[in-house]
Amino acid sequence: MKVTINDIAKIAGVAKSTVSRYLNGGQVSPETKDKIKKVIEETNYEPNSFARSLKSKRTNFIGVIAPALDSYVTSRVLMAIDEKLRENQFTSLIINTSKSIELEIESLLNLERQKVDGIILFGTEMTDEHINVIQSMNTPVLIVGQETPAVHCIVFDDYNAGYEIGKYVAGHGHEKVVYLGVYERDVAVGKVRKQGVLDGLLHEGKNVATVYETEFDIDKAAKMTKQIMKEQQFTALICATDNIALGAMKAIRETGKNVPEDISLTGFGGYVYSTFTEPRLTTIKFKHKETGHLAATTMISIINEEQVPSVQKADFTLLEGNSVKKV
Amino acid sequence: MKVTINDIAKIAGVAKSTVSRYLNGGQVSPETKDKIKKVIEETNYEPNSFARSLKSKRTNFIGVIAPALDSYVTSRVLMAIDEKLRENQFTSLIINTSKSIELEIESLLNLERQKVDGIILFGTEMTDEHINVIQSMNTPVLIVGQETPAVHCIVFDDYNAGYEIGKYVAGHGHEKVVYLGVYERDVAVGKVRKQGVLDGLLHEGKNVATVYETEFDIDKAAKMTKQIMKEQQFTALICATDNIALGAMKAIRETGKNVPEDISLTGFGGYVYSTFTEPRLTTIKFKHKETGHLAATTMISIINEEQVPSVQKADFTLLEGNSVKKV
Repeated sequence: MKVTINDIAKIAGVAKSTVSRYLNGGQVSPETKDKIKKVIEETNYEPNSFARSLKSKRTNFIGVIAPALDSYVTSRVLMAIDEKLRENQFTSLIINTSKSIELEIESLLNLERQKVDGIILFGTEMTDEHINVIQSMNTPVLIVGQETPAVHCIVFDDYNAGYEIGKYVAGHGHEKVVYLGVYERDVAVGKVRKQGVLDGLLHEGKNVATVYETEFDIDKAAKMTKQIMKEQQFTALICATDNIALGAMKAIRETGKNVPEDISLTGFGGYVYSTFTEPRLTTIKFKHKETGHLAATTMISIINEEQVPSVQKADFTLLEGNSVKKV
Repeated sequence: MKVTINDIAKIAGVAKSTVSRYLNGGQVSPETKDKIKKVIEETNYEPNSFARSLKSKRTNFIGVIAPALDSYVTSRVLMAIDEKLRENQFTSLIINTSKSIELEIESLLNLERQKVDGIILFGTEMTDEHINVIQSMNTPVLIVGQETPAVHCIVFDDYNAGYEIGKYVAGHGHEKVVYLGVYERDVAVGKVRKQGVLDGLLHEGKNVATVYETEFDIDKAAKMTKQIMKEQQFTALICATDNIALGAMKAIRETGKNVPEDISLTGFGGYVYSTFTEPRLTTIKFKHKETGHLAATTMISIINEEQVPSVQKADFTLLEGNSVKKV
């Protein structure tokens, strides 16, 4: 008698979907994994035939969920993902969520219903509901941009990138520094990047920055910068993104001050447009293309049931402009 | 006896899919339209019941095919389309084609197979194959960015925008003008926009520009600008996009010249980043948001079998920077 997944599930006392997930390289608790593995060994079940049947059912679509399409970094990583997937005969179906958490969850389920082979989710905030939904799904999910327990993910090296910038600004002698970041719900940018910056400043032994919060928006950042300039005396402004830095540059100019003569300024992102400003912005350039390619090849490995590290970090470089002066 | 679409098709002597397309508000030749209409009247067929059954089969997905995701204008129109569709309970599934014509055709068919309710295609070049495929499909298609006979489309008002810029540059006294455009396969940007510029220059009665071609790429535009500077004497450079203008600005600077003192410069697009350059770029700002909303509501109207104009034009404004001087 041929052993089926149903049999394995019954004997192991787990759901059929858990067995599929196990066979499909998805997330299963170590305990359950052991149980299923044992039953498979005992029953001489051949997972390969199942895997083969799975493969023949492939749609070769990969769902990609992005919080925005008009973000410089996201759009470039998206393009790189898409191109690498295409090289491997996959087509990405991209869904925008306009940063709605609710839509992220809905899109995960929508894409599973559309029978995609895998889903790449650009994380903004990862809630318990995200984790629950992802673990209940049969479709493998890869997170980009946020570190998430129990789900494969690819993150920007936000801590070390922040550290590098903090060290650079402190190294130029700045002691009155403001960090203009974003809300902590976005763990990668709001928390980890900020902590890197603050620790990097401390590297020089004396610096503590005043921390302000704004949003990922040029105009809101400009408004906030004007408010900070009223409240604080400072010589350097470290911004959490290039867009925030561009907003700040605008505000500083409109207030009759100059970068870097009056205020030194840095960004994060490495937009090509930030090299056209006067002065050119000193910033962190995340390697968009490499990150996208890494995400695509990792997704394909997961679909092919190959082992992949649970967390992979994408690389960065410091792009030195002339927006920071020595004091 | 209840009349079916099959009966209508047989009596009218056309394919069943043609009748669906007719009922669905899709493209049908006027002659065929008359035939089907007549048969429907004679048989007392109730298209509403068909429409209702169609509606119940809706997936509420709209496919959107874009030539690139990292284009400033495209990504902003995409966001606006997506947000307006979402307001109306539709989800867009976006496919990137990296400007491959072949992938555009494949994506049209792929999305139809995914049973989307309609497809919005950002046109780059519209070939006969595009038209043939679109007309053979049951899924309604809306083209954005290129005027296409026999398919509903929304275009930027490229001719008048070009005319406006040409008139502006000539009005500033420039007589030695270079137009740096793109290949004519892209009819909207490569042909119509260029013609607008040339006619706008002539508005002042004396101007003829030398025309060069490049691609939608900052670095290639920079390289081409350096070549033009070797070959030509000119006082103004009109560029087909802001990215081309930014590349030109870089090249002019690297050659030791200044904008606008030595060379006046204009763009097309109205990227927020072009207001951060020094000098600020004079450019045409297409209304991205309005265009996206118009595309979304038009798509929904087509799906709902409402009448929509075959060609609709999206509006623009001239953004005056300080990159053009009076000579």
